[in-house]
Amino acid sequence: MKKIKIGIVNVTGYAGIELARLLVRHPGVELVSVTGRSAAGQKLAEVFPHLAGATELTIESELGNVDFAFVAMPHKESALEVMKLIRRGIKVVDISADFRLSNPDDYIEWYGFSHPSPELLDKAVYGLPELYRKDIASAELVANPGCYPTSAILALAPAVKNNIVDEDIIIDSKSGVSGAGRTLAIGSHYSEANENTCAYALKGHRHLPEIVQELAYQGGEEVNVTFVPHLVPMTRGILSTCYAALTPEYTSRENSQQEITAIYKEFYKDEPFVKVVDAPPHTKNTWGSNMCHIYSFVDARTGRLIVVSCIDNLMKGAAGQAIQNMNIMSGFAEVAGLEAPPIYP
Amino acid sequence: MKKIKIGIVNVTGYAGIELARLLVRHPGVELVSVTGRSAAGQKLAEVFPHLAGATELTIESELGNVDFAFVAMPHKESALEVMKLIRRGIKVVDISADFRLSNPDDYIEWYGFSHPSPELLDKAVYGLPELYRKDIASAELVANPGCYPTSAILALAPAVKNNIVDEDIIIDSKSGVSGAGRTLAIGSHYSEANENTCAYALKGHRHLPEIVQELAYQGGEEVNVTFVPHLVPMTRGILSTCYAALTPEYTSRENSQQEITAIYKEFYKDEPFVKVVDAPPHTKNTWGSNMCHIYSFVDARTGRLIVVSCIDNLMKGAAGQAIQNMNIMSGFAEVAGLEAPPIYP
Amino acid sequence: MKKIKIGIVNVTGYAGIELARLLVRHPGVELVSVTGRSAAGQKLAEVFPHLAGATELTIESELGNVDFAFVAMPHKESALEVMKLIRRGIKVVDISADFRLSNPDDYIEWYGFSHPSPELLDKAVYGLPELYRKDIASAELVANPGCYPTSAILALAPAVKNNIVDEDIIIDSKSGVSGAGRTLAIGSHYSEANENTCAYALKGHRHLPEIVQELAYQGGEEVNVTFVPHLVPMTRGILSTCYAALTPEYTSRENSQQEITAIYKEFYKDEPFVKVVDAPPHTKNTWGSNMCHIYSFVDARTGRLIVVSCIDNLMKGAAGQAIQNMNIMSGFAEVAGLEAPPIYP
Amino acid sequence: MKKIKIGIVNVTGYAGIELARLLVRHPGVELVSVTGRSAAGQKLAEVFPHLAGATELTIESELGNVDFAFVAMPHKESALEVMKLIRRGIKVVDISADFRLSNPDDYIEWYGFSHPSPELLDKAVYGLPELYRKDIASAELVANPGCYPTSAILALAPAVKNNIVDEDIIIDSKSGVSGAGRTLAIGSHYSEANENTCAYALKGHRHLPEIVQELAYQGGEEVNVTFVPHLVPMTRGILSTCYAALTPEYTSRENSQQEITAIYKEFYKDEPFVKVVDAPPHTKNTWGSNMCHIYSFVDARTGRLIVVSCIDNLMKGAAGQAIQNMNIMSGFAEVAGLEAPPIYP
Repeated sequence: MKKIKIGIVNVTGYAGIELARLLVRHPGVELVSVTGRSAAGQKLAEVFPHLAGATELTIESELGNVDFAFVAMPHKESALEVMKLIRRGIKVVDISADFRLSNPDDYIEWYGFSHPSPELLDKAVYGLPELYRKDIASAELVANPGCYPTSAILALAPAVKNNIVDEDIIIDSKSGVSGAGRTLAIGSHYSEANENTCAYALKGHRHLPEIVQELAYQGGEEVNVTFVPHLVPMTRGILSTCYAALTPEYTSRENSQQEITAIYKEFYKDEPFVKVVDAPPHTKNTWGSNMCHIYSFVDARTGRLIVVSCIDNLMKGAAGQAIQNMNIMSGFAEVAGLEAPPIYP
Repeated sequence: MKKIKIGIVNVTGYAGIELARLLVRHPGVELVSVTGRSAAGQKLAEVFPHLAGATELTIESELGNVDFAFVAMPHKESALEVMKLIRRGIKVVDISADFRLSNPDDYIEWYGFSHPSPELLDKAVYGLPELYRKDIASAELVANPGCYPTSAILALAPAVKNNIVDEDIIIDSKSGVSGAGRTLAIGSHYSEANENTCAYALKGHRHLPEIVQELAYQGGEEVNVTFVPHLVPMTRGILSTCYAALTPEYTSRENSQQEITAIYKEFYKDEPFVKVVDAPPHTKNTWGSNMCHIYSFVDARTGRLIVVSCIDNLMKGAAGQAIQNMNIMSGFAEVAGLEAPPIYP
Repeated sequence: MKKIKIGIVNVTGYAGIELARLLVRHPGVELVSVTGRSAAGQKLAEVFPHLAGATELTIESELGNVDFAFVAMPHKESALEVMKLIRRGIKVVDISADFRLSNPDDYIEWYGFSHPSPELLDKAVYGLPELYRKDIASAELVANPGCYPTSAILALAPAVKNNIVDEDIIIDSKSGVSGAGRTLAIGSHYSEANENTCAYALKGHRHLPEIVQELAYQGGEEVNVTFVPHLVPMTRGILSTCYAALTPEYTSRENSQQEITAIYKEFYKDEPFVKVVDAPPHTKNTWGSNMCHIYSFVDARTGRLIVVSCIDNLMKGAAGQAIQNMNIMSGFAEVAGLEAPPIYP
Repeated sequence: MKKIKIGIVNVTGYAGIELARLLVRHPGVELVSVTGRSAAGQKLAEVFPHLAGATELTIESELGNVDFAFVAMPHKESALEVMKLIRRGIKVVDISADFRLSNPDDYIEWYGFSHPSPELLDKAVYGLPELYRKDIASAELVANPGCYPTSAILALAPAVKNNIVDEDIIIDSKSGVSGAGRTLAIGSHYSEANENTCAYALKGHRHLPEIVQELAYQGGEEVNVTFVPHLVPMTRGILSTCYAALTPEYTSRENSQQEITAIYKEFYKDEPFVKVVDAPPHTKNTWGSNMCHIYSFVDARTGRLIVVSCIDNLMKGAAGQAIQNMNIMSGFAEVAGLEAPPIYP
């Protein structure tokens, strides 16, 4: 079978280079072009020596001839790049936030810019395969979800959809530092981030509207979400602990724990990358893989449901999910190129 | 002034050895006796080389002649040790949980043993100086609070006491690994804990009844607390993120953020070890010190109060607070031996 | 093609479970039996949740019917197990040290036991493919090298073989904590190993005779090696910095740097897993892979050659190399199951 | 007693802010002025919240009226600042490298600038109290040693001075990331430095001439030093492992280990901050303190002396040693403000 020609726009961030790592080993594709402004002209494997021996590509300033592209630009710039590619008839998975929110006004409120292409926004599909697999299969443009939203939505979708919890939801997420990107910043400086944990963005993280939008779609009504992200001293991984009051129906039943566990297992029973586990999950058990582990617990004492989920933020939270989307869009096996188990310890 | 003679029962755990570090430099005391079963007969500074040059003590199997003792035994064993010391007329700060809960029945439920001395339980004072300073001053026995409860109660006391929030409270705490102690365990094994975050004890951590008891005292009524502790890959530090719905009074007001901040600042205005800060705190900024940093935030979008607090779990969460209690019990300046600022970075 | 049936004796250590991770994805084999005393009877994927979905195996107490076995027992016990397997006609890669040293007396001196099978020792091949590929291809029993020796011998073999350096050699190695194994120990306790670096085993690490033996074979004469291992706070990775005086021939030449670099590149030019790099290597760039990066530097000021090498201690230093050996012994492509690039960051 | 008024030029780097932490608690001084270009006008405790409650100082752009100053500027800029201060009659400890090398030509070779004040260079004293206590006591300007040189020179001085080793010396040092400073750089970016170890500056680190100069002074003749620094994933700490051949006198003796240990213990017997220990030291055991632990080992097998030393790079390797120098220059007890034991774990 002829391999699909793939390009990565902005390969030099952590999501971009993780895409490259996965694509050089993907059986159905050929990575033929990667761009990156600051490093243009250099060999990819020289800038990123972990790819020594795995690729001979040179970083370019403009994308070459490709059938399919991943765009990993900062928001706003990404939209412009995506528009150009779609116009050229190239299918795109956009890693940025530029096509995740369906309401154009949200971009003004949360990102501070007027969306340049509301009509493309209409066509874009939110790339969470567990919820939108069919739409993704026929999409030209997929908006790859944010890392926090992936962990939170997968944790809560079964509960919201099945009216297990009421609409007041608290999501307390803990992320490794790579989530803050490869751009230098004092908060990602080793001596500042090591031996440190902190909460941030209490006034409203940009991933909040994405979570709210998707949970509302699942539940069929507005949700009242408080989302507090935290930075913990590790490179990869997100753990989200989600809290919501059980609806009266579930509060009163004696075996609600078993029922809810069953609902979760049923919801994800055919999913290759979601595993409903029987003990609180550890981020380490998804490290380097596209897996999401989910654990739901009924706190009978207080009438609450607690759901804990974890992913690798650069995999299921970014590049891995993007490959999964590409697989669906291109007719590959959904797990192609993503079969390697997590690396432990 | 004659120095008070101090002893530490079970110096070889992390709380015990941290007490030793602080006591060898305390201006009003002399550390004269330390015990530790496994290491008895060895020089303290040989087992713990960071104390080289700071102490010549030998670890004993039985406590010598002291005026004041810290007991850092496992629960149940601690109670028996404390009873003996109190009978000998020695004042005690107990680091264990054995005198923290005022209802003897709680020990059966949460710790699986019948309390051996309910009458001593009546006399014991819960050693959170910010709430019980006066009682501590005249106590013979102080029950040093747990690390999680210290961070959670200090975060929530002003809100609960002032009816700012309703009784449904969620506490999501993140702790460094030293909180799990010096006893070997797979969860504290370096390669398992490094690059890993997990939730644990969802079925009920032993610190929960302590939190519930104290918040109920502050608020004058029962509270409905969900408490989920997490392990994050750092040695020291606890960050607690607390969530509760604002009462209607505070939901409706326009300037509730300013009012609540003012209430928090007023509540702790004379406290040497609590600082109400204006940005989400970082555990690193309390590392190695007895400080607690607290930040309260009104999430107007959802009508919730979010309070984030942090401490060093071995200091304000254990040994530092124990010294603070000793200072109050012994008439020293409350900050004696605890003035060193946190170590950064 | 019919898949080879594989077994792992003692799957529950870090080398054993890393073998399992690699074998469940290997195209030419089927992992059919794994043993582990303490965990016998449990599902492998329950004890090690990172393998959830990747295997349905149950841990056994005795190895089932296999064509090929990896033995990852502690030394001395491993030899007995290997003897039984070889007698049954099963090919073996032994991860322990029990067949690495060709002189039986060395086991008494370094490991404190009399070798139970000197005749099998004669047949065993030292499993460093870069040096013994041919012998490995026809071996029934391969002794998988130690992690430190792998990094040191690959770093020094070209220099020793080509008389670039004299026989006085210093090897200063830095290892991640997983090298100390999964067995609980105070030195691997998180709070002790985190934020800590130390040297150990100055009186003679058990990997020293292995290094000495192999460098002597390469150079054709005795070498005088000082080897000091260090523990650094990371999970995976070994970096070895090797120092030796240049022989007069190379000290006097003007372009010895270029010549030596050329010799190194030639030496490893066909090797799939050794890359001679042009800047000091980072362990991170081999993390999770079977790669070894080597950098040689002529310190003209002092007349010394400095060679820095790095590997992932659980991959090229243990399980990865074992798979590489199995591939050679079984006629698979040498890189089968080992093609995934390192994971960065 | 009247307190000495102290200033810090460039308080916003890690050495500068560590000085502030120590000075706010020093019994004999008052920290009255701190400068820092980028942060001028802000409260010191707002930029560095770990000092909340410990200081009310505002960061200035120009130093106020002081009796004594610490200068922690980048090299070359520091010299100019120091010259101004000395002209004003202010005693100075310079944290930079600008007065460490006695030969002005070395600045051109190693730092790329012509020294602006060779006459001041003549007067400056190298601030290693264990070697130059007397000269420091009467100095107006002390050049605070580099972090690597402090660990290496203290490790080797007794051996070099007593002709225990020959002049060929290898120093393999491992440093925590804070040694690279607070200025953002990709090598100090958390996700790059975490789970990573590397060697760097093989072509010649700027601390090399400082080590060579001081060891030559001690030994009375040139030394042939190879120095390779490494970065390991921790915030604080340096471990230096030093290798040199024993002189024939010590190679041949039977009890050279005991003799050499005795020489080391004698050499440092009155030193408050150097401890000759009986087992390989751990950086953790000096963490946060001004201590240096040293261990010497005779490798009889190879005729080499191995000396391992460790310090906290920001304390004995920078700010702590600077305070020690100030104490000597000002007639304070040498340990004033530096008595707190290391923090463990």
